[in-house]
Amino acid sequence: MISHLIGYLAAILTTASFVPQAIKTIRTRNTQGISLIMYIMFSTGVLFWFIYGIVIKDIPVIVANAVTLCFAAIILVYKILYR
Amino acid sequence: MISHLIGYLAAILTTASFVPQAIKTIRTRNTQGISLIMYIMFSTGVLFWFIYGIVIKDIPVIVANAVTLCFAAIILVYKILYR
Repeated sequence: MISHLIGYLAAILTTASFVPQAIKTIRTRNTQGISLIMYIMFSTGVLFWFIYGIVIKDIPVIVANAVTLCFAAIILVYKILYR
Repeated sequence: MISHLIGYLAAILTTASFVPQAIKTIRTRNTQGISLIMYIMFSTGVLFWFIYGIVIKDIPVIVANAVTLCFAAIILVYKILYR
């Protein structure tokens, strides 16, 4: 179904988008332009999505948010360490 | 239901998290630490979530992603203009 294809494409893009940011942040340690509040809110939100996935027993929601949480948490830790 | 509460909290946090980043980027114009690839992928992904919401006729998905798209697009435009 076309709607599933759009949904999967959306999930892959939004999840994978944090990979280039994490790589850039690890390489450059330049976190000046990155918002600490954003990554605190975002990481907490993704953690809630992950818990939500467990509660509603939805594997794609669990997996996508587990992956996003890893990369968002890396960026958050770098932001705290190198601000 | 507790699962709805967790879902709404997750949606509000991940959507609203881009507001402090957009404000910071508009104020400082410092986009050096921000990944261009991330915001291209993320904005495209959120656009697909928005289209997905229209296809499956889900108002929360449409609204949350319309809001996120606005702020992500602002950050993307600033990244392109002030890199």
